[in-house]
Amino acid sequence: MENYARIPREKLYSICTEALQKKGCDIDRASIVAEVCVEADMRGIFSHGVARLKRYLDHIDQGLIIPGATVTTDFETRVSGVYNGNHGIGQYVSKIVCENAVLKAKKNGIGITVVKNSNHYGIAGYWAEQIMKNEMIGLSSTNTAPIVVPTYGKQAMLGTNPIAVSIPSITRYPFMVDMATSVIPRGKLEVYSRNKKQIPIGWAVDEKGSPATNPGNVLANIKSRKHGGILTLGGDTQEFGGHKGYGLALLVELLTAGLSMGAPSFETYQKHGKICHLFIAMRLDLFGSSSSIMEHITHILHNIKESEPAEDKEEVFLHNEKEYSRREESLKRGVQVDLPTIEALKCICRDYSIPITI
Amino acid sequence: MENYARIPREKLYSICTEALQKKGCDIDRASIVAEVCVEADMRGIFSHGVARLKRYLDHIDQGLIIPGATVTTDFETRVSGVYNGNHGIGQYVSKIVCENAVLKAKKNGIGITVVKNSNHYGIAGYWAEQIMKNEMIGLSSTNTAPIVVPTYGKQAMLGTNPIAVSIPSITRYPFMVDMATSVIPRGKLEVYSRNKKQIPIGWAVDEKGSPATNPGNVLANIKSRKHGGILTLGGDTQEFGGHKGYGLALLVELLTAGLSMGAPSFETYQKHGKICHLFIAMRLDLFGSSSSIMEHITHILHNIKESEPAEDKEEVFLHNEKEYSRREESLKRGVQVDLPTIEALKCICRDYSIPITI
Repeated sequence: MENYARIPREKLYSICTEALQKKGCDIDRASIVAEVCVEADMRGIFSHGVARLKRYLDHIDQGLIIPGATVTTDFETRVSGVYNGNHGIGQYVSKIVCENAVLKAKKNGIGITVVKNSNHYGIAGYWAEQIMKNEMIGLSSTNTAPIVVPTYGKQAMLGTNPIAVSIPSITRYPFMVDMATSVIPRGKLEVYSRNKKQIPIGWAVDEKGSPATNPGNVLANIKSRKHGGILTLGGDTQEFGGHKGYGLALLVELLTAGLSMGAPSFETYQKHGKICHLFIAMRLDLFGSSSSIMEHITHILHNIKESEPAEDKEEVFLHNEKEYSRREESLKRGVQVDLPTIEALKCICRDYSIPITI
Repeated sequence: MENYARIPREKLYSICTEALQKKGCDIDRASIVAEVCVEADMRGIFSHGVARLKRYLDHIDQGLIIPGATVTTDFETRVSGVYNGNHGIGQYVSKIVCENAVLKAKKNGIGITVVKNSNHYGIAGYWAEQIMKNEMIGLSSTNTAPIVVPTYGKQAMLGTNPIAVSIPSITRYPFMVDMATSVIPRGKLEVYSRNKKQIPIGWAVDEKGSPATNPGNVLANIKSRKHGGILTLGGDTQEFGGHKGYGLALLVELLTAGLSMGAPSFETYQKHGKICHLFIAMRLDLFGSSSSIMEHITHILHNIKESEPAEDKEEVFLHNEKEYSRREESLKRGVQVDLPTIEALKCICRDYSIPITI
């Protein structure tokens, strides 16, 4: 990021909390949204940070998010639960449903919970991490708006459908894979479009399903729900495994929308947000001594980390390493926010009479 | 496949069973290996079919596989189990450990089992499918020999580490994703090498960690455990998400070797086979009415299948559709086997005095 300022996390947190409260969220709902947004920015995942605040406020105006909605229970067993978010704000819905997975795992070893009729829940990794902190393997996944095209298709039927998994270890930073199953996030098209750069073949297809190089055109098609969209991990051919990314994205649909009886990505955001999430919590001591397993996992990660880099690279990275070292820096020096986002936050403060200066 | 003959599945099955029995496997062990090999060929996954028989027999000779080994239990709870394959033949070890996952799920909703010190277990999808047949979501995964390089690395630390998931539905063919987390399987390098074709950039790296185009060179490096190897799904750069495939491959290491306290790919095949597998069985009625969920899953799959294909394609495929329609054809018309494999089987029949003519 080139043009940015560093803002203390507390300030960002307060702006989010206050703005959402003015829109009808209570303090519990407002504060979890603020927490997840600021965590994203602290880790450098700016697409999911405070820059999203404006969109959340708009979604409340548009009725996609119902700020006062509560979570209701459709079905439960000792190790599983199916819930209805009733179009509530995604982070609050997720907090409740994710905590239920952890509670079930504490009592019975494993908890698997799914929820329908939710909204955008922020970075998938935040939820996997909350579970992992309990000495459990944490998994979180969600479907999204339909902007991704199946292999050989031209209709955007799938979401970017991220999967995040975090596993306890004794490494410096907690290990976590947090990945969209699309080849790129929508935000990347926006960056290329702003910079008037062509996108490489393999990222997206146009309205005919042919390789697209003009990011503005792809974005316009997505917005107007014309055909075309982003490709799955592996691109548009079987040569580089596009059918694998497509398989993962479709799995996410079946495990989130399928198991919760909710809307698949291609039916969501109609009148209300209808996003579906999945959370899995699995106690490490289901497999023996937690501490021995954590040591063994650390041994594996250490060996991968210390393996020799390619001649033009300096080191091999573990997943979450860059994000977490950036998080530490953000805590010390303040959170990087780009100038357009700062302007947007200033507008929100003015519009909602929030007495915070940034 | 161009040069092949069709052989009745019973003949292939008998050759496998008899040869393995001559090598010291009892009928239970020999027949499950035969079953999994023939299933692979019937679906057109020739890399995991009867062409592997010779390698299994060699592995018994080399002591990697101990044909009489039994599976022992290291740790169990109502929903989980950790086992030791004691270097037994992979398909037999997997049959026992996979069945334990199903039994636990039948009683308690979910069963998650891991095993160390096993050997090659055939196609991952076979095991996911066995679980799925019980009206359960089935997942199977395994680590393998180390032939895959982490993003930015040059040492082959990871296996091709497949993940297979099958989900019950009312579609014509059972839905299943069965994918290596590498961009290509080793077999693809072998095909390109035989045909003296260059491989595209993004499939493999050479001993310096630089893009490789000579498949023979990559194979020689893998064999001699020099540096270099196959890349993860998404290729060698973050541009196309190589770090995501690397994340998935590493997850497989942690969930198979990590949880079983077994050998990660980079420590396996030393003296004995030390491969680790994972099986997850999850009853569909953990989430409500199985039949309603299956209908909803079918609705999602149907819509994806019927979505519009790209202008140069005829249809969008669901995962397992091609494999299963080929399986039906194999049952009717016999199993395709290529001529070099037929020659190899003839040699085995001669060497082991098996009175079967193909």
